Amino acid sequence: MKNCLCLLVVCIMHCSAYSQNVKKDSATLKQISNHILTNYQCYKDLRELCKTIGHRLSGSPQAEQAVIWGKKVLDQIGCDRVFLQEVMVPHWVRGEEKASFITAKGKKIPVVISSLGNAVGTGPEGIRAQIVRADNMDELKRMSRADIEGKIVFFNYRFDQKNINTFESYGPCVYYRWGAPSEASKLGAIGVVIRSVSSAYDNKPHTGSMRYDTKYPAIPSVAISNVDADELEKMLAQPGKVSMEMMTTCQMLEDVKSYNVVAEIKGSEVPEEIICFGGHLDSWDIGEGAHDDGAGVVQAIEVMRTFKQLGIKPKRTIRAVLFMNEENGLRGGVKYAELAELNHENHILAIESDAGGDVPLGFSMEMSRAQKEKVKSWKPLLEPYGVHNFEHNGGGADIGPIHRKMNVPMMELLPNSQRYFDVHHSANDVFENIHRRELCLGSVAMAHMVYLVSMYGL
Amino acid sequence: MKNCLCLLVVCIMHCSAYSQNVKKDSATLKQISNHILTNYQCYKDLRELCKTIGHRLSGSPQAEQAVIWGKKVLDQIGCDRVFLQEVMVPHWVRGEEKASFITAKGKKIPVVISSLGNAVGTGPEGIRAQIVRADNMDELKRMSRADIEGKIVFFNYRFDQKNINTFESYGPCVYYRWGAPSEASKLGAIGVVIRSVSSAYDNKPHTGSMRYDTKYPAIPSVAISNVDADELEKMLAQPGKVSMEMMTTCQMLEDVKSYNVVAEIKGSEVPEEIICFGGHLDSWDIGEGAHDDGAGVVQAIEVMRTFKQLGIKPKRTIRAVLFMNEENGLRGGVKYAELAELNHENHILAIESDAGGDVPLGFSMEMSRAQKEKVKSWKPLLEPYGVHNFEHNGGGADIGPIHRKMNVPMMELLPNSQRYFDVHHSANDVFENIHRRELCLGSVAMAHMVYLVSMYGL
Repeated sequence: MKNCLCLLVVCIMHCSAYSQNVKKDSATLKQISNHILTNYQCYKDLRELCKTIGHRLSGSPQAEQAVIWGKKVLDQIGCDRVFLQEVMVPHWVRGEEKASFITAKGKKIPVVISSLGNAVGTGPEGIRAQIVRADNMDELKRMSRADIEGKIVFFNYRFDQKNINTFESYGPCVYYRWGAPSEASKLGAIGVVIRSVSSAYDNKPHTGSMRYDTKYPAIPSVAISNVDADELEKMLAQPGKVSMEMMTTCQMLEDVKSYNVVAEIKGSEVPEEIICFGGHLDSWDIGEGAHDDGAGVVQAIEVMRTFKQLGIKPKRTIRAVLFMNEENGLRGGVKYAELAELNHENHILAIESDAGGDVPLGFSMEMSRAQKEKVKSWKPLLEPYGVHNFEHNGGGADIGPIHRKMNVPMMELLPNSQRYFDVHHSANDVFENIHRRELCLGSVAMAHMVYLVSMYGL
Repeated sequence: MKNCLCLLVVCIMHCSAYSQNVKKDSATLKQISNHILTNYQCYKDLRELCKTIGHRLSGSPQAEQAVIWGKKVLDQIGCDRVFLQEVMVPHWVRGEEKASFITAKGKKIPVVISSLGNAVGTGPEGIRAQIVRADNMDELKRMSRADIEGKIVFFNYRFDQKNINTFESYGPCVYYRWGAPSEASKLGAIGVVIRSVSSAYDNKPHTGSMRYDTKYPAIPSVAISNVDADELEKMLAQPGKVSMEMMTTCQMLEDVKSYNVVAEIKGSEVPEEIICFGGHLDSWDIGEGAHDDGAGVVQAIEVMRTFKQLGIKPKRTIRAVLFMNEENGLRGGVKYAELAELNHENHILAIESDAGGDVPLGFSMEMSRAQKEKVKSWKPLLEPYGVHNFEHNGGGADIGPIHRKMNVPMMELLPNSQRYFDVHHSANDVFENIHRRELCLGSVAMAHMVYLVSMYGL
């Protein structure tokens, strides 16, 4: 009953906010949606990014091309200003990689591997050692140095298919990619192979960032696909020892100069209040970075294009940011926050799109309760576009630094999560796996949110 | 304010309904979801249906195989009874079909066509005539008999990309497939070619049901893909006349005996109250009928399997129905309603899944206001599974007859609609375009709704 009364109060607040300009806003939102869905320029942009540049890991020539491409596309839109923010980024290169399992009977079975990002290589001479399986950290910790020393640890932690939101399954898996290799090294392992962090049962390994604990030797660390991990499980269940040969030549080179790409339309009434939004230009070096995060990049560009082409004048300044180096360093996000502080910029909101290009269902929010209520008061305007879920906390990786440093409220676009981890960080993250209307609806959702905050503040 | 007070009353009703057994129901719903997502037997069933039987138009040998397959799978589950309902169905066969455009300069350009379901053929000798374009019915009606007589009418009505719910775009297009051919015949046309009723820009034509107005000659009617329709538009915009040659041998044969497949688990407390749910076994004769409606079929089967395997005893009788002949006659749905009336069955709800196997977002409802409120009181239980939208009216084609005849409340599962009309009725409606987790979540949503109604009635 008490809850119901609270709801009534909230309702009345909503009713009053909702009635304000609701007809005009509703028409503008529809105009934005019609424009994006019938022109689908963001889809054409993504095709160009994926097919003419392709994957674009920080420090690579393709990342440099992506910066030039992003600036060119934003320049053509006619924003008030387009500028670059210089940032030094890590430059990790994959090189060659190959591996085989060796069964107890000595049979060699080639397996496709993908070195984890930032990992060291084995060098051209490679390594060969017995495989020891640990299904999770508890299992590893129950083993002694004698069990592990000189061996390759197989982290066989599975993506939990029971969660409805697949990000809840991704979270616990990530430690086995990010931190577990050093836990194995601590016990004397000479290499690590992990079951891919993925919802898909296919033969594609999924890479992703890792970090070494400098207290222990840095050891080569690779991922294998879920199908190959199942095969390895079966081999290990047979009597006798299973070994692995692997040769990887990945290495970290000197830092390279790169850039965030930023485009701005000045606010007509409160230009000092800035709403920034975007995704990351860099991607892993396999696949084409279509969902991660070409989608976020072209959606941010599409927001700017739509405002300009429809002649919508935001009251507050809106700023699209194509961040560099989200995948293996976050240097772009950190640099953006540093410069915002240095320049005494007043960001009232940061929005990220980095959860794939599938159909949008809502936004997560990390902000005050009052701010959340204000956003939720726009629900009746957004629900006709399928954007209904405002119940999750959280923002995004690239806007994390400005949120922490300057307490800027943040949001993240929440697309349908069912398909994302099928392709994420793998050779399957290609343009063909993007759906035109769903990508466009993500652009629509971003443009709608940017429009409402630019008109009414937060 | 008045609306707010109404909402308060509804809230209080909700609060009381929600508290009742909420913990136990919540646990059962989670158990159902875990079971389906980790076993994904419905996905394996669909692979079998699509890959060993394939498409299965009413009257075809494959439709007969699908009946045997459906009964066998349901028998294996151990339902209280599995039975067939005999029904005579139309038997339309496509035969051969080929066509070309002939440009003003006499160049012949082959084009892929798909005869509309139930259409007559040209016969092996084929037809050749000038093409006249009508973008919509108004344009046709402005033309005279002299404009049309002896010609082939090109209905160039476009799928509206601006609607968010793609079913809203499908609706208006359907007339151009279903009824427009006779409107052209009325003015003396000798053939019709329509732009495919589809959201996709690809080179696959989409078939679908049509009906002739017996007052006018039945004329050959075919679909071309959106890409080919664009090409034809361009040709027609050039000076000179464009013609088309087409040869189709489709024909309607004698009716064939076929069956609905029905499986039942008797209610433990109120067995006389029946909840039926299902999809249709037949499909068009191109593609594999994966989304339309293999998905609905395997989801209905999965509901029964899940109840049996988890030992869930419904208080009311639950009944999975695999309907025959939804696509070009609806004879199975009509027969089911006739038999229900004849046997004085008390159906308290009919649920259909025939809108594809993509991620479920809600249910439409066609029932009394009080019944709708009862269903909506379960929202807090269903929202964690992404099922949040209960705002649409409507049921489904196969359950329409029982709804109209016996006033049975009806619902339809509402999956994400963005992708459905890309593949619907085309060669692209194949198993590979089904997403495992999304299909499973559809089964989960169906099982949840069936469970709640079986426990609490409607």
